[in-house]
Amino acid sequence: MRPYAAADIGTWDLTADVVIAGYGVAGAAAAVEAARAGAEVLVLERAGGWGGAAALAGGFVYLGGGTALQRACGFEDSPEAMAAFLMAAMGPGADAAKVTDYCEGSVAHFDWLVGCGVPFNPVFYGDPAWEPAGDEGLMYSGGENAAPFDEIAAPAPRGHLPRMENKRTGERGGGYMLMKPLVDTAERLGVKAHYGMRIERLVVERDGTVRGVVARSYGERVTVRARRGVVLATGSFTYNDEMLAAHAPLLSGRPGAAVEEHDGIAVKLAQALGAGVAHMDACEVALPMDPQYSIRGILVNGRGQRFVNEDTYPGRLGHAALFQQDNQAFLVLDEEGFEEAGRVSAAPEFMRMRPAWVCETAAELGAAMGLPPGALESTLDVYNRHAEDGRDPLLRKAARWVRPLRGPLGAVDLRGMTSGFALGGLTTSADAEVLHVDGAPVPGLYAAGRATAGIAAWGYASGISLGDGSFYGRRAGGAAARNR
Amino acid sequence: MRPYAAADIGTWDLTADVVIAGYGVAGAAAAVEAARAGAEVLVLERAGGWGGAAALAGGFVYLGGGTALQRACGFEDSPEAMAAFLMAAMGPGADAAKVTDYCEGSVAHFDWLVGCGVPFNPVFYGDPAWEPAGDEGLMYSGGENAAPFDEIAAPAPRGHLPRMENKRTGERGGGYMLMKPLVDTAERLGVKAHYGMRIERLVVERDGTVRGVVARSYGERVTVRARRGVVLATGSFTYNDEMLAAHAPLLSGRPGAAVEEHDGIAVKLAQALGAGVAHMDACEVALPMDPQYSIRGILVNGRGQRFVNEDTYPGRLGHAALFQQDNQAFLVLDEEGFEEAGRVSAAPEFMRMRPAWVCETAAELGAAMGLPPGALESTLDVYNRHAEDGRDPLLRKAARWVRPLRGPLGAVDLRGMTSGFALGGLTTSADAEVLHVDGAPVPGLYAAGRATAGIAAWGYASGISLGDGSFYGRRAGGAAARNR
Repeated sequence: MRPYAAADIGTWDLTADVVIAGYGVAGAAAAVEAARAGAEVLVLERAGGWGGAAALAGGFVYLGGGTALQRACGFEDSPEAMAAFLMAAMGPGADAAKVTDYCEGSVAHFDWLVGCGVPFNPVFYGDPAWEPAGDEGLMYSGGENAAPFDEIAAPAPRGHLPRMENKRTGERGGGYMLMKPLVDTAERLGVKAHYGMRIERLVVERDGTVRGVVARSYGERVTVRARRGVVLATGSFTYNDEMLAAHAPLLSGRPGAAVEEHDGIAVKLAQALGAGVAHMDACEVALPMDPQYSIRGILVNGRGQRFVNEDTYPGRLGHAALFQQDNQAFLVLDEEGFEEAGRVSAAPEFMRMRPAWVCETAAELGAAMGLPPGALESTLDVYNRHAEDGRDPLLRKAARWVRPLRGPLGAVDLRGMTSGFALGGLTTSADAEVLHVDGAPVPGLYAAGRATAGIAAWGYASGISLGDGSFYGRRAGGAAARNR
Repeated sequence: MRPYAAADIGTWDLTADVVIAGYGVAGAAAAVEAARAGAEVLVLERAGGWGGAAALAGGFVYLGGGTALQRACGFEDSPEAMAAFLMAAMGPGADAAKVTDYCEGSVAHFDWLVGCGVPFNPVFYGDPAWEPAGDEGLMYSGGENAAPFDEIAAPAPRGHLPRMENKRTGERGGGYMLMKPLVDTAERLGVKAHYGMRIERLVVERDGTVRGVVARSYGERVTVRARRGVVLATGSFTYNDEMLAAHAPLLSGRPGAAVEEHDGIAVKLAQALGAGVAHMDACEVALPMDPQYSIRGILVNGRGQRFVNEDTYPGRLGHAALFQQDNQAFLVLDEEGFEEAGRVSAAPEFMRMRPAWVCETAAELGAAMGLPPGALESTLDVYNRHAEDGRDPLLRKAARWVRPLRGPLGAVDLRGMTSGFALGGLTTSADAEVLHVDGAPVPGLYAAGRATAGIAAWGYASGISLGDGSFYGRRAGGAAARNR
């Protein structure tokens, strides 16, 4: 964990200009950009192959401001509208400078991905879902067109999804189709990768400059010299139980959308050099729930009260359930709603919603759910009263999805079903330099991806991790390559 | 911020065995214990005098397990019951080893305080309040006797309050009456203190051992050598805007129950040496509200829904409002409730509750508050329906405080009124050694009080800060004195 003194290394086993730890999206983007800047690049990946959490992800990249894909789908957007949305939706605590930087560079970053061979199908998908039913390339992925964000910034869809090769089998999902072209590009540029190699320590000069890493490969110690810089891109600390207990205890026992390699090593190695961290308690959290169901019903907490507009980004529903409702949530829907959602749903089987209880009346359903008499009835009364007029003044769900819910009613039990990943991590500059707690860069050390506190503070949208991971991965690779 | 190399210090301006930064409760307890262990002790305090946040606090020290004061007041308690309560109420994320350690040492710690001359009046105060009306010495201060904690552990009051000299003027409040005897004891033991001296850097040997501090006194740099150890006891980071933005953004702009000296310097100085931090986003938050009012009414959020049993520790009401209800809260009470609370209240004037709106019916009141039709009415209907039977099945407020609320009704506007302080900080051992992110102690460096992540993770009770500050302050002073 503690740095290793450069003076104590006799012969280096490996040497490159830029050494990158982790071959997920941040590492791949860093590799491409460093190689293009003329650096000899070596990637050390702990797993047996490239990909990381990115290759297993749905593949959303959160971009906007008027990308070619947005325009091809007929949507207008601006960096300002995108920044206004992100400041509201990624907060509280979103970093205004970083958000602005990201939004201003977003159009060019999309073009960069396309230039690396990432395919995007210029078709918009507008149905409620976690991801498109087919190979559509653009979707709302953050609740931009729902309350309260629709009043904060002009909505535009910003979930950019690489075109999948085989949606049915999932083997060529969007994340894979993002990663494969990036890795191919890196390989064409001469980037070398070593797999099964896990970083253990940073190597540091007496003046504090990071000079390389000590890794472990099949039990053997390997010393790796970085002539220009080390890029940390090993992902979040979601699978480090001790770090979850210290920072994000509500996520303990419920990791999701992360890989087991996410052990927080990069955060700790940099902290040992005095690096700062931010938003270590923040998490993205989801409920395994098809939005076609939830949008038609009402989501209630352990007291039978509604707490979120059901038409927003589905990740916000899980976040609110875990952080604000003690991980207690039920979806209440009527027979018509269940049937309609079942007909139109394109979600995988495990996200189809089945009621744990079905009753003729709200009173009976509330009793079956263990709620006090009157609790669920009054919630439904208020909802139905306004739904008659197509309105939801309590939470501002869009009129399109509001209609009275009439018995027989069913309730899906979602208690304790949240899972997710940690959003906190190292503080970094716009050039992806790791920042010491005094605000100055740690010389020779760069980081990107979920090892860092990126665009998201206490909020999230699908595509933010692949977005800021690739965006600041590029910055890290470029800055490291230019560092002499 | 970064450590200063010991080799670069020519002549030390000051020298002591144990150097303590901060003369609040943690620093004072450390000073006493270090001096008793035979060390020459020097305290550096940034302000013009001793006291810190402690001397301005109400003065609760959270102790139990069967203290002499608890027994004198007729209450039984055990370390096990105390630990069961704290694990539930200080979580999620409470550190079981530290909680157990604290509970097992709690009776002896009370005796230690008494031995230092801290006066406690063996009289229990049982009315709903933030603190006793007079000079009573024992009170429930964490919701031990309210849901859900009353079913988790056998309730006992554990808020131990030093006897005040002049309750009316507040000049001799409980916090002062805790601090004064501790400082007097320290002075009798030969402890020296320098005021107006602000630590800026730690001085570190090449092997990583902390050897002293560099401080600033009226613009002049002062080097202070610690033969045995340095104790950091400079309080929380509540008044460091940048740290709040990075760690606890919801608290930005709403500091409370802290002093402006709480700038987080200790956290950053230790982080620069690789020290770990925990629960940096966690806060204690309060609403300026007399419990005599809130306990008789219902607290509702921005949607008119109840969200907490109003008879629990009042700090939990504010915490829930800020972290779970978007800082939106109203207290709804009927005329009888306002009048009764006004008659029995012993709270200061600013905590007396005045309604922003008074209406004949719930429907009118809800409209005046800007709530959608039906929202407040249904909340009151459900509450009153069960209150007829003296029950609150939704949130389990004790029967004693439950009765139907009948118009005319008033609502107190508590939106945005929360304030509080940060609970996160450095990770430390049971001996108050500052822990590196690799889990090993940083040699020569100790910390206690709100610069550390103590007993409280994401929950709180009044008296925890003076409790773990003094408890681990003692440990820090003792361990530093024994360190050779």
